[in-house]
Amino acid sequence: MSTTDKKVRIGVMGASGYTGADLVRLLATHPRAEVRLLTANAHAGKPLAEVYPHLGSLDLPAMIRVEEADWSELDVAFCGLPHGTTQEIIAALPTHLKVIDLSADFRLRDPQVYAQWYGHEHRAPALQPEAVYGLTEHYRDAIRGARLVACPGCYPTAALLLLRPLVAGGLIEAGDIIIDAKSGASGSGRSVKESMLFCEVAEAMHPYNIASHRHAPEIEQELSLAAGADLLVNFTAHLVPMNRGELITAYVRLDKGASAADLRGALSETYAGEPFVRVLPEGSVPGTRHVRGSNQCLLAVFADRVPGRAILVSTLDNLVKGSSGQAIQNMNLMLGLPETMGLEQQPLFP
Amino acid sequence: MSTTDKKVRIGVMGASGYTGADLVRLLATHPRAEVRLLTANAHAGKPLAEVYPHLGSLDLPAMIRVEEADWSELDVAFCGLPHGTTQEIIAALPTHLKVIDLSADFRLRDPQVYAQWYGHEHRAPALQPEAVYGLTEHYRDAIRGARLVACPGCYPTAALLLLRPLVAGGLIEAGDIIIDAKSGASGSGRSVKESMLFCEVAEAMHPYNIASHRHAPEIEQELSLAAGADLLVNFTAHLVPMNRGELITAYVRLDKGASAADLRGALSETYAGEPFVRVLPEGSVPGTRHVRGSNQCLLAVFADRVPGRAILVSTLDNLVKGSSGQAIQNMNLMLGLPETMGLEQQPLFP
Amino acid sequence: MSTTDKKVRIGVMGASGYTGADLVRLLATHPRAEVRLLTANAHAGKPLAEVYPHLGSLDLPAMIRVEEADWSELDVAFCGLPHGTTQEIIAALPTHLKVIDLSADFRLRDPQVYAQWYGHEHRAPALQPEAVYGLTEHYRDAIRGARLVACPGCYPTAALLLLRPLVAGGLIEAGDIIIDAKSGASGSGRSVKESMLFCEVAEAMHPYNIASHRHAPEIEQELSLAAGADLLVNFTAHLVPMNRGELITAYVRLDKGASAADLRGALSETYAGEPFVRVLPEGSVPGTRHVRGSNQCLLAVFADRVPGRAILVSTLDNLVKGSSGQAIQNMNLMLGLPETMGLEQQPLFP
Amino acid sequence: MSTTDKKVRIGVMGASGYTGADLVRLLATHPRAEVRLLTANAHAGKPLAEVYPHLGSLDLPAMIRVEEADWSELDVAFCGLPHGTTQEIIAALPTHLKVIDLSADFRLRDPQVYAQWYGHEHRAPALQPEAVYGLTEHYRDAIRGARLVACPGCYPTAALLLLRPLVAGGLIEAGDIIIDAKSGASGSGRSVKESMLFCEVAEAMHPYNIASHRHAPEIEQELSLAAGADLLVNFTAHLVPMNRGELITAYVRLDKGASAADLRGALSETYAGEPFVRVLPEGSVPGTRHVRGSNQCLLAVFADRVPGRAILVSTLDNLVKGSSGQAIQNMNLMLGLPETMGLEQQPLFP
Repeated sequence: MSTTDKKVRIGVMGASGYTGADLVRLLATHPRAEVRLLTANAHAGKPLAEVYPHLGSLDLPAMIRVEEADWSELDVAFCGLPHGTTQEIIAALPTHLKVIDLSADFRLRDPQVYAQWYGHEHRAPALQPEAVYGLTEHYRDAIRGARLVACPGCYPTAALLLLRPLVAGGLIEAGDIIIDAKSGASGSGRSVKESMLFCEVAEAMHPYNIASHRHAPEIEQELSLAAGADLLVNFTAHLVPMNRGELITAYVRLDKGASAADLRGALSETYAGEPFVRVLPEGSVPGTRHVRGSNQCLLAVFADRVPGRAILVSTLDNLVKGSSGQAIQNMNLMLGLPETMGLEQQPLFP
Repeated sequence: MSTTDKKVRIGVMGASGYTGADLVRLLATHPRAEVRLLTANAHAGKPLAEVYPHLGSLDLPAMIRVEEADWSELDVAFCGLPHGTTQEIIAALPTHLKVIDLSADFRLRDPQVYAQWYGHEHRAPALQPEAVYGLTEHYRDAIRGARLVACPGCYPTAALLLLRPLVAGGLIEAGDIIIDAKSGASGSGRSVKESMLFCEVAEAMHPYNIASHRHAPEIEQELSLAAGADLLVNFTAHLVPMNRGELITAYVRLDKGASAADLRGALSETYAGEPFVRVLPEGSVPGTRHVRGSNQCLLAVFADRVPGRAILVSTLDNLVKGSSGQAIQNMNLMLGLPETMGLEQQPLFP
Repeated sequence: MSTTDKKVRIGVMGASGYTGADLVRLLATHPRAEVRLLTANAHAGKPLAEVYPHLGSLDLPAMIRVEEADWSELDVAFCGLPHGTTQEIIAALPTHLKVIDLSADFRLRDPQVYAQWYGHEHRAPALQPEAVYGLTEHYRDAIRGARLVACPGCYPTAALLLLRPLVAGGLIEAGDIIIDAKSGASGSGRSVKESMLFCEVAEAMHPYNIASHRHAPEIEQELSLAAGADLLVNFTAHLVPMNRGELITAYVRLDKGASAADLRGALSETYAGEPFVRVLPEGSVPGTRHVRGSNQCLLAVFADRVPGRAILVSTLDNLVKGSSGQAIQNMNLMLGLPETMGLEQQPLFP
Repeated sequence: MSTTDKKVRIGVMGASGYTGADLVRLLATHPRAEVRLLTANAHAGKPLAEVYPHLGSLDLPAMIRVEEADWSELDVAFCGLPHGTTQEIIAALPTHLKVIDLSADFRLRDPQVYAQWYGHEHRAPALQPEAVYGLTEHYRDAIRGARLVACPGCYPTAALLLLRPLVAGGLIEAGDIIIDAKSGASGSGRSVKESMLFCEVAEAMHPYNIASHRHAPEIEQELSLAAGADLLVNFTAHLVPMNRGELITAYVRLDKGASAADLRGALSETYAGEPFVRVLPEGSVPGTRHVRGSNQCLLAVFADRVPGRAILVSTLDNLVKGSSGQAIQNMNLMLGLPETMGLEQQPLFP
């Protein structure tokens, strides 16, 4: 497919969520993408522009119920459904489709761990082994050959791009990692909850899901793989009064002999030539405003005043590199398209 | 130039302002644009990424002083300098350049009016007659042939796209137009003022420059031309705690016999086929979030409860359609490129 | 009661709304108030601190269902219930109670107008004539003697404090008043709606309920009384991304011979000595940040550039002077307490 | 003085900063306070209402230069000057005055440490030993007898109220404390910097002063005293797009045998009966919105999933309990007034 100019025919399940809308936004300027199907059960029959007027200039099919979807003429399915509903739906898709799941349903390699954190048995355990974890920069080859990619959560993407190379390289103590995470409100999706009303979020901040956030086991799974041993991390998320953006501050203990400069060097080497991950020079401080709306992720390393410790920072746009953008990056890989296609929009600042 | 794939070689004066940065952001994904020169006198010698880290992934020339610029190998000059400084600089540019000015220096056709509102004599009155007012949808032909385009202010763009067709068509009383305008903080630029500190703007709003805003004479100039008679408008601007976005609510008196539907119809007809201006159907309410980051402008018409009156709404992103985006749209026209080239990014929501 | 130091025993119906919470906040430092009863049907049985942790340091009774309330030992009932539910509940209250209603249920003097705007017949028409419209500065004497006070809506408070003296004094054309109103999100209450999610409101603004806002007939009722003739106003509300604060920009036509200075003078005279309404000197621009959290209202008058027109501005905190604060001010009057008691908190800025 | 109703005559140095303004706001409803003198060198000659219109309803003396102040008839001096300028000014004050310093100039007990962090020698080393560290709940007796109180920084107040009892009680490992701090923009004061413009802060967040924040040595000084041994902490501050509010998430290692419940118990015991510090019950999550505008501080303890670790949270309003409110609390103690006088305003939410 990559050698012709034929359009990639795409279906998006769960188009009425923020993630679905951002997929459509990005695909609209992807030169090879054509969105041919949109599902959103609660809004079936409506045009997408009715629930997302900002997409009103696009010519899109009306949303339908997921049960009504005809996948026979499509090439790719993006799945942005709430977790728990996704496993059976994906298991029932025709096998010619490339499937890119943005939910949590196939991220955890061990169905037992899934069951423990999500409160029900995995509903497609036979499919789980086939799912490739879609952390693009680290599983690029496997993604290229995959039929089903499970895109990481937004926090895991930010955390793993930062920490995986350091744990794998033995530069930090894998058993003493503290991750203080901050996110804008879009991470919570468009579901209607009192706690997400403007007046509850604006001019305020607070931690949430303390010691119980479902992104923790995902981070632990991947860092354990990198470390070659099971580990736990402290992961604490905070809600910040902004729409988009995520920033992780990680507090780590240097392995004997390693310095902050060594960590920076290792990250720079890992991501040399990467189009979407940049390691900042010493002293440069990343902020969410530097990546807003883009598929970029910024990493930085600072020596702590406490001997033997370092402070690490990672930032990305939770809806783009943390979700829809990384999903499209994976699609490009799966289809043999240039990896950056459709993802070259620069950050929107201010 | 338009028939080949040669890059358009571009210089941006005043690159360290928000407008300059947004120009660079948009030009970065313009398939034919190449930014070859950046000036910013206060930051000469620095890379743009030092003052705008969000553009740090781009390969750009370092900023230089405007006096040091060599324009001989360039095709286009964008000028985002503060008003007052621009006239002499543009007058001194080599004449092979296409010049697109984003300042206020050439917007007012009558140098006397300029002097009255800007507090000093026009410094390039000989050049003024050559300047084409860059309200793209209304001066498209003149822009195509222009060497110097004076892009409208952000408020005038929103107001004139809304009101010009209605005044020209005699559908509203040209002498009784009230424009209540609201803008995000980026309209004030990056200049450092106490009144623009976060704490002064956030969780608050207020009107400013009441009965003395410099965009009023610009709106009046163009509406007077459309009406064929001099008129004044009430124009009152308000600062809203958001980065981007501008919304105008206009209160008008219907001309005898006209209805709100007539107004909507006239606007729809005017903008049929326009890529960036959309007239919303009855009952649909525009918001700044529907256009954020994009070159789109949304218009809507509502019948008032007061007989004989209508309420009109216009919204755009002040930095894009209200400034840098419209400037690039004009560049495309001046160079014979497809008008939408580089401007097809969809709005960023949320 | 006013001559002793006995506490005023107070019940608050609808304590789980933002208005109810702000009543409790203010009453907590009112030297003569004691909150003895809180109702909130959806939260019956819970302490208020569970739904409003910011009030967690107060010693308050648990919330009960409104049907369970025993009013026999209480002096005052504040009613912050949704409109439509209030009329029957208030009609059933024991008559020894002073009743201060913050809903819309008794604001409209004509039950026909109520039915037309609220979609159902008035459910306590016999009680309506007794209700005093609680615009404190204009109905002070009637409020003193009232048993039932219907507190104005937030927008009507801001609009009427500004416009009523000018219409009554014949200084502006009563038939040509345009009110462009802007409000923070708390005006919408705590009810859970997609449109009020943080991501839908932040970094954005838009008008709403265009030509159909229920505060219009209330403004018209009072201005018609002041004018001695029925009139309509243009009233258009906008949602601004802030929690609290309301600002009205009114566009008026001066009556023959009147100047902006005359208007300012008339307002200054009207409000001379008022503790909570201040008329700003020429050139001083009010903003919502100047009144945040306080019971103050600021008014200002500006001459327009358009001859014969003026621009008027009014600002208040919608939850305080626009709701709970004015309600307490009325309570003080009804009980013979000093009018400013419990309301002297200064605005919170930044 | 405490036994009469005589007003306390107060001078505020540095009244044009946010801290100065919040002092005036709170003192305005303090029943025994009378602000008799305001200094602000850059605004000398102006009324305070000109720089802080939200205080425009107060009757206050015009601001003067600090050199012009006559302290002979005053009782108390609050000093909200930038650090570095304060030491000599306070040293020159008449000794009958109670002096409450809100700057950093007398917080560090060791002038060497001061010199190291602030870049110049201490200018009143003879006065330093007399200064009492104004962390009210922990130095109450010393404050009562003090002539000069050095109020803690906002972050140290939040951090020390949380951590000091735990370190003193040996419940956590004093050598392994990580403090991730988040603050609203008012913590940066009203000084005009590009980095604090609305557009740079809104819809964004980032860490700042990484491993070099001047509040670190202050926290270390007090925790070292509590531990009985020198220690370092990791302290990392982040800027959050809100005006007010500060939240600290601390990651600690439990001392052998201690549980999260033990920590909560120790805090509850320490602060039993305190009017302004509340320890939340298990599972209750503090947010900055719960304390906004008030003198309250909320503390909470959570068990981590990582064995042997706990997550601690502290939140306060940086301008109130973190600055002006605590300063007034100290004044009340120094004068023998009820400690809560003038500080009983409830938090402003939403």
